[in-house]
Amino acid sequence: MENSWATFGRDLHLDLTGPGGLRAALLRALRDAVRSGRLAPGTRLPSSRSLAVDLGIARNTVADAYAELVAEGWLSARQGSGTRVAERVLPRTAPAARRASGPVPGPVPGPVPVPGPVPGPAGRADRPRFALTPGTPDVAAFPRTAWLAAARRALTTAPSEAFGYPASHGRPELRTVLADYLARARGVRADPDRIVICAGFLQGLALLSRVLGTGRLAVESYGLDFHRTVITRAGLRTVPLPVDERGARTGELTALDDVRAALLTPAHQFPTGVPLHPDRRAAAINWARATGGFILEDDYDGEFRYDRKPVGALQGLDPDHVVYLGTASKSLAPALRLAWMVLPERLVDPVLALKGTGEWQSGALDQLTLAEFLSSGAYDRHLRGMRLRYRRRRDQLVAALAAHAPQVRVSGIAAGLHAVLELPPGTEQAVLQAARRQGLALEGLSRFRDPTAPPASRDALVVAYGTPPDHSFAGAVDALLRALPPGE
Amino acid sequence: MENSWATFGRDLHLDLTGPGGLRAALLRALRDAVRSGRLAPGTRLPSSRSLAVDLGIARNTVADAYAELVAEGWLSARQGSGTRVAERVLPRTAPAARRASGPVPGPVPGPVPVPGPVPGPAGRADRPRFALTPGTPDVAAFPRTAWLAAARRALTTAPSEAFGYPASHGRPELRTVLADYLARARGVRADPDRIVICAGFLQGLALLSRVLGTGRLAVESYGLDFHRTVITRAGLRTVPLPVDERGARTGELTALDDVRAALLTPAHQFPTGVPLHPDRRAAAINWARATGGFILEDDYDGEFRYDRKPVGALQGLDPDHVVYLGTASKSLAPALRLAWMVLPERLVDPVLALKGTGEWQSGALDQLTLAEFLSSGAYDRHLRGMRLRYRRRRDQLVAALAAHAPQVRVSGIAAGLHAVLELPPGTEQAVLQAARRQGLALEGLSRFRDPTAPPASRDALVVAYGTPPDHSFAGAVDALLRALPPGE
Repeated sequence: MENSWATFGRDLHLDLTGPGGLRAALLRALRDAVRSGRLAPGTRLPSSRSLAVDLGIARNTVADAYAELVAEGWLSARQGSGTRVAERVLPRTAPAARRASGPVPGPVPGPVPVPGPVPGPAGRADRPRFALTPGTPDVAAFPRTAWLAAARRALTTAPSEAFGYPASHGRPELRTVLADYLARARGVRADPDRIVICAGFLQGLALLSRVLGTGRLAVESYGLDFHRTVITRAGLRTVPLPVDERGARTGELTALDDVRAALLTPAHQFPTGVPLHPDRRAAAINWARATGGFILEDDYDGEFRYDRKPVGALQGLDPDHVVYLGTASKSLAPALRLAWMVLPERLVDPVLALKGTGEWQSGALDQLTLAEFLSSGAYDRHLRGMRLRYRRRRDQLVAALAAHAPQVRVSGIAAGLHAVLELPPGTEQAVLQAARRQGLALEGLSRFRDPTAPPASRDALVVAYGTPPDHSFAGAVDALLRALPPGE
Repeated sequence: MENSWATFGRDLHLDLTGPGGLRAALLRALRDAVRSGRLAPGTRLPSSRSLAVDLGIARNTVADAYAELVAEGWLSARQGSGTRVAERVLPRTAPAARRASGPVPGPVPGPVPVPGPVPGPAGRADRPRFALTPGTPDVAAFPRTAWLAAARRALTTAPSEAFGYPASHGRPELRTVLADYLARARGVRADPDRIVICAGFLQGLALLSRVLGTGRLAVESYGLDFHRTVITRAGLRTVPLPVDERGARTGELTALDDVRAALLTPAHQFPTGVPLHPDRRAAAINWARATGGFILEDDYDGEFRYDRKPVGALQGLDPDHVVYLGTASKSLAPALRLAWMVLPERLVDPVLALKGTGEWQSGALDQLTLAEFLSSGAYDRHLRGMRLRYRRRRDQLVAALAAHAPQVRVSGIAAGLHAVLELPPGTEQAVLQAARRQGLALEGLSRFRDPTAPPASRDALVVAYGTPPDHSFAGAVDALLRALPPGE
């Protein structure tokens, strides 16, 4: 069944130390999987296109390997039913139970009877086959070819000094093109001299927290625990700001003492998915101006908006009181560890003084490559493609829910890479358990609630439709539908 | 004169936003330099080979540009005297003073009469033309083509998960090949699970300092001030350990209270250049075993040794009490921001717990590329080439000093990228000032003396012959000779 292949691209170990290069390594890995019984007779393989995408190799390499294994009798190919493991291959173990269900019929799967726990192969019983957990974009879609082309241009033309110790600001080439890009795409008022490149959003947050020193930093009552950890490790205390259907209640900032800054996700509140209401945006700016405080604007997925014009960055309203924080982790890949801050003038020197001590530096070559990737238009092209891909997935998710779980209300879908599915009170943990039984990694909303915030009784799922590789998305939605509570 | 071209590769701004690509940009930049008078009539240009290396572009591109500018009348080329700026070009300003001396006659230049301060073009008066300051290898020699080839192989074969959030250990591919390499090349007893990849030596030192927590960390009485800064910012105090001709006096560790660890440079003491004597190595290990302390082994240039077999890493003697710290900053380029620690078992979990909070992560793509660069043998090839290059420069420096400044004793030259030149007592500052007048950036030994150590009366220069690009090395040595005090 196609589903059991969902994580195949990740599980397949291509041992390139053997002879014959990539194609030979793929042949060895596939033969091993059949010989060991990990792939049962009759199992349908993913299409050569989707496996190639997942492995990041040429489709021809996969197609050739399939053809050779058919010729050798390991696989069989029939018109209309794809490539399968041949029935006559003798597996060392016979995991017949894994052949129960047929292939998923189409992009939006219908509801499938819940078959109960599906045990994985020995030693991998608790490894989920699917993941709809937030934090990571579809990393199988990383634009390897375009990135390598940009790297070639960047490294070929870089001046020699670019290979020396990088400045703590980050490379000027990147800061210059980012200033243009952020102005154009996010309405950020950016001067290259006020941009500081970081090894990810968290490094920026850590630097800012250390620069702010003591006192309190307001955070949204729903957010990420490791953000709060970084803030408190720097010596600040966090104070939760309630989040409702208009975003964080920034009007309450004025009632709080000793708050130096507020960390907000204005474009798409994480995880509830709502944009910050214009009144709330104004209240945040007014508080910062009145108190000399700062808004830390976490624009983690601001580039992904589907149904209307992007909401411009809050920073555009007041660059002297808002720190804009953007990242390549959602738009390209977390592996790059590249993010950027646009700082108010009075924070530039303190941040650079701290970052300049050396333990915080980012590599320059990826910075040069990203600069080239941006200036050549490859970044815009990549984002256009990913927007289409994510939007299609969102539409598939919404359509599947409307057809098969109409009782579930979906929100937060105008932007970003995740949706919020409201659940009947008291059912969140049971649904998460059911998802685990379906081999689906999933997070509930309660996981993101600040434990110091007043108790809330909202049960919901945070469904990150951006995470899985394309070929396993349908299977993931299928598993989600099976985990949801039945309708009225 | 060739000298004025020393930093040309760095100063030349190739504006690639214009039409016609790299060749056209180079033509524009050269014409601008002649038109503006920055390049005076008669000025000799660097060879196409050396400019190409410095700019990191194909030699043919430079040679073609020269040929075209000769055809256009901007340059003139005569057999035996190289390419020069044509005499008939009308400069906007006439910096005739800069044409005083002829071309440097050969690789080991003779002493040239000190011409007094050479003013640079307006606005760049205090920018040195040469640098023999330590810390950076010859970055113009970065193996761009081999690195790009490794990047292509690494990115093409990387599994999709490699584009997700990197593990705080670093990529397994890199840790595995590093374990092999360090065992083979440096005698390190390394298990991939005890290797942690860092964004440079300083990050490793910062992590270790934080893990050690409180108390004192012994440092060599000659060393780098920013190392001491990172240690004290983590909450530790430093205590200097005297350095003599056998390296750090590690026998004195037992007399010190509350010392958690000692930071040493056993292979090649920085900056004095001596290897740690075997008795001192044993004393360091004995102290660590007796007290449960750690030796932090900073193996910053252990791969560069010229006159005998490399001194194996101290870590090989006792992997449970020595942290080995290596880096790509000297062997490849500081721009990579890649280094590695091999940790005693009991430090692995604390270091990963601290690093795992996210603000310390390194990009995965360069890690994958370095793994491929190592496993393909490209790293060994690069090191072989660089060893030859640096050894040749060292020999040139030593020969030039022997011929023209025989009164100067040279030491620390068996390894590494720098030499120490002893000066008559009380003359160090005067020589540094003379060097500045020669347009030469240079450091004295006193700059590296721990200010909390007992006063020492050693005057010396730390001459980093590894730093300049090849084509300006002879000019740098020439400037150094002019700055040295006259012999008896």
